[in-house]
Amino acid sequence: MTNNNLSDEKLYEMKNRVCDANLKLKDSNLVVLTWGNTSEINRDAGIIVIKPSGVPYDTMSPEQMVVTDLDGNVIGENSLKPSSDLDTHVYLYKHFENVNAIVHTHSTYAVMWAQSRRDIPAYGTTHADTFYGSIPVTRQLTKEEVEKEYELATGKVIVERFENDNIDPIAVPGVLTVGHGPFTWGNTPDKAVENSIVLDEVAHMALMTEFLNPNKDEIPQYLLDKHYFRKHGANAYYGQ
Amino acid sequence: MTNNNLSDEKLYEMKNRVCDANLKLKDSNLVVLTWGNTSEINRDAGIIVIKPSGVPYDTMSPEQMVVTDLDGNVIGENSLKPSSDLDTHVYLYKHFENVNAIVHTHSTYAVMWAQSRRDIPAYGTTHADTFYGSIPVTRQLTKEEVEKEYELATGKVIVERFENDNIDPIAVPGVLTVGHGPFTWGNTPDKAVENSIVLDEVAHMALMTEFLNPNKDEIPQYLLDKHYFRKHGANAYYGQ
Amino acid sequence: MTNNNLSDEKLYEMKNRVCDANLKLKDSNLVVLTWGNTSEINRDAGIIVIKPSGVPYDTMSPEQMVVTDLDGNVIGENSLKPSSDLDTHVYLYKHFENVNAIVHTHSTYAVMWAQSRRDIPAYGTTHADTFYGSIPVTRQLTKEEVEKEYELATGKVIVERFENDNIDPIAVPGVLTVGHGPFTWGNTPDKAVENSIVLDEVAHMALMTEFLNPNKDEIPQYLLDKHYFRKHGANAYYGQ
Amino acid sequence: MTNNNLSDEKLYEMKNRVCDANLKLKDSNLVVLTWGNTSEINRDAGIIVIKPSGVPYDTMSPEQMVVTDLDGNVIGENSLKPSSDLDTHVYLYKHFENVNAIVHTHSTYAVMWAQSRRDIPAYGTTHADTFYGSIPVTRQLTKEEVEKEYELATGKVIVERFENDNIDPIAVPGVLTVGHGPFTWGNTPDKAVENSIVLDEVAHMALMTEFLNPNKDEIPQYLLDKHYFRKHGANAYYGQ
Repeated sequence: MTNNNLSDEKLYEMKNRVCDANLKLKDSNLVVLTWGNTSEINRDAGIIVIKPSGVPYDTMSPEQMVVTDLDGNVIGENSLKPSSDLDTHVYLYKHFENVNAIVHTHSTYAVMWAQSRRDIPAYGTTHADTFYGSIPVTRQLTKEEVEKEYELATGKVIVERFENDNIDPIAVPGVLTVGHGPFTWGNTPDKAVENSIVLDEVAHMALMTEFLNPNKDEIPQYLLDKHYFRKHGANAYYGQ
Repeated sequence: MTNNNLSDEKLYEMKNRVCDANLKLKDSNLVVLTWGNTSEINRDAGIIVIKPSGVPYDTMSPEQMVVTDLDGNVIGENSLKPSSDLDTHVYLYKHFENVNAIVHTHSTYAVMWAQSRRDIPAYGTTHADTFYGSIPVTRQLTKEEVEKEYELATGKVIVERFENDNIDPIAVPGVLTVGHGPFTWGNTPDKAVENSIVLDEVAHMALMTEFLNPNKDEIPQYLLDKHYFRKHGANAYYGQ
Repeated sequence: MTNNNLSDEKLYEMKNRVCDANLKLKDSNLVVLTWGNTSEINRDAGIIVIKPSGVPYDTMSPEQMVVTDLDGNVIGENSLKPSSDLDTHVYLYKHFENVNAIVHTHSTYAVMWAQSRRDIPAYGTTHADTFYGSIPVTRQLTKEEVEKEYELATGKVIVERFENDNIDPIAVPGVLTVGHGPFTWGNTPDKAVENSIVLDEVAHMALMTEFLNPNKDEIPQYLLDKHYFRKHGANAYYGQ
Repeated sequence: MTNNNLSDEKLYEMKNRVCDANLKLKDSNLVVLTWGNTSEINRDAGIIVIKPSGVPYDTMSPEQMVVTDLDGNVIGENSLKPSSDLDTHVYLYKHFENVNAIVHTHSTYAVMWAQSRRDIPAYGTTHADTFYGSIPVTRQLTKEEVEKEYELATGKVIVERFENDNIDPIAVPGVLTVGHGPFTWGNTPDKAVENSIVLDEVAHMALMTEFLNPNKDEIPQYLLDKHYFRKHGANAYYGQ
């Protein structure tokens, strides 16, 4: 028992969801080698469960998931180290209060855009069904930020971009960290993984849309509204 | 028994064909998550069978398929909601009278063209074997159309494009809805799926043909005629 | 027994090799739906074995393979029709006397080049290991050729290109038919399939080589010589 | 027993690691047909174990691996020929003294860059996590080098490039041989394979980064430093 506020059973379910989400990333071809991690937060219980560092996917088990408090301090007897990206996750959880699960990958097409230092424009309804507007890329970190507190600073520039441009992290459940790769989030680990799948797919579609149509026409705002709001919010009615 | 004009057995076979076609879309890598749907019409019996809304592919069964009348009103006791694209299907069945099955996907390469707002030119015989001419893209819907009756309007602009340009939906069994994705159709759900497979493949081929040959030379009309008519119509003789 | 010059056992082995080669095309992702065919010739026995027309890959068996004489006349009691591309195969066998097996596909990357009406230049050693020089594309067929004897004319323009440019079909075991797709050949059906695999792979590599290096520098002749001749001919010594 | 300095058991383990690494290349889709090879050196025991020439992957076994001395002379009773690329491996082992395993492939995206005669720039952190700077391409071999001692000369131009530009082969564990393909290396066959997987993935990412951002901005030096050194050297702390 690592926490008084959560039964062993509930904690195990949480570890299981986080582990499953990691495996689903692999099955969805979003992860090469061990390049991905997932976490879930339970704010009431005061804990975060995150993938351990450098563990191969083919032997990953729920027991290996690492438990930390809301500041990222490891609690419990688990000897594995948490993912090095823990500080980014912790910072996002502190500032995106309705986000309960986070996923990070180096998925191929999303990385191409991140390396290109460009937002992914909303070129179609596949994008609009999940992301209400462009998927933003963060600014370049300064030398000092990189050297002093790299993973924390990564969280900070994500939040900075969302705040500066008044982007709602629920309406745009993902970001590209410049030169690096995507983070997505959601209500559950499963939903955060789903958003990573969508992000990589729309990154691929957008890439070649620009080749075929150099005008780079985005979809009209009213179509973006329609697609997003028929799936999200009070008036949602959509299902394929 | 949902309809007096169709035996339980025949109805089950119809549901089975529609369910199978959905699963085949998934197996053919044309569908990410739940982004696809298939339907079949029986005009004599007055019914349409369509995929339910938002059901995951790995647990999909024929029993889950939704039955509606020819206007898209759900009939029978099935509690699942029909695919939100039902209105598009219904409109197409009303106006394309020789079409008995419809498929909609967000397949990657077809979407790239749809988002680029461009017809797919007939660059080769792989295209001509199935599509007798360019695969058309619909016009952009107006704000009013999107807000008032989006799924129905999607059907309308498809039919509008075929009528305006005198395109025979039997000779060109597919379309790109602008900014969205492809619809294909056929005599049976299986044939409609096959046409979706072909459409995505020729979309991929055409994409890179334009990279290699910026002149964008389409195949000569006489070769288009030869390939299409050796497989279709009274004088067909072809099989690979 | 369909032919006095070949034992039942030998004929079955031949059918088996042709059937296996077709299935290998499918397993190598070179074939969508039924878009591919393979044949083998036994000149001494006076027979050609070729894939039947339009048979699905998942139920294909050696017994279904069609036997013809050296002019492409079906012999034996098999009720299936030979592949419509038979006339192309027959013409190639008549003019490429050291070729014993032929494969035709619509493999994705090879088709992109065929549709672009361009030879595939020898950009690297992967190409040179199998193809001693550019992989040629045929000229456009005339309206008359297409209408009168399309499949035969396809064979004729292949041979025409090899004769006009003094290309040795053993040193360049494949071709692109313009707007259509590749044919490859070899000593055995297995080798012809292998050459189709190589052709599609080098087509893919060459495509993006042109994106990265618009100068389109081919490899030096002496490197082409080295790679080709260390694998082929009297002084071959190569194996990865 | 092929060598007095190594027990039968240790030698078998070495053969097993080399065989496994070859199979892993295949499973990772880095190898078409038989286009790949792996070796491991034991400098104390004075032996190199390398893949045999032209053996198909589906029947490959540890027993087939070929043992040579440090000059590449085959020792022991194994009748199979070593990979033709043996001389390249031997030369690299002699000059890269901390390298214990080498992998060569014709992986698709790496070859595109090799054929384009271009280094792969460090466009992102996925690259920086494994390669501390651009992945270099060798110069074109002269006619004389190709004709006289091709495989040995391939080793020489690799070492020449690393020496001329003061590149540390431990910090940049891979190279592109111009017009040909990648070689990677590592402490173990497994690590060398992993580096091949990374190289091909970053080659793919870099390709389309250039399409999206024609400015070709590389990541800042301080970010390259951060990513490389958080995973490598005395202060490493990283794991996803």
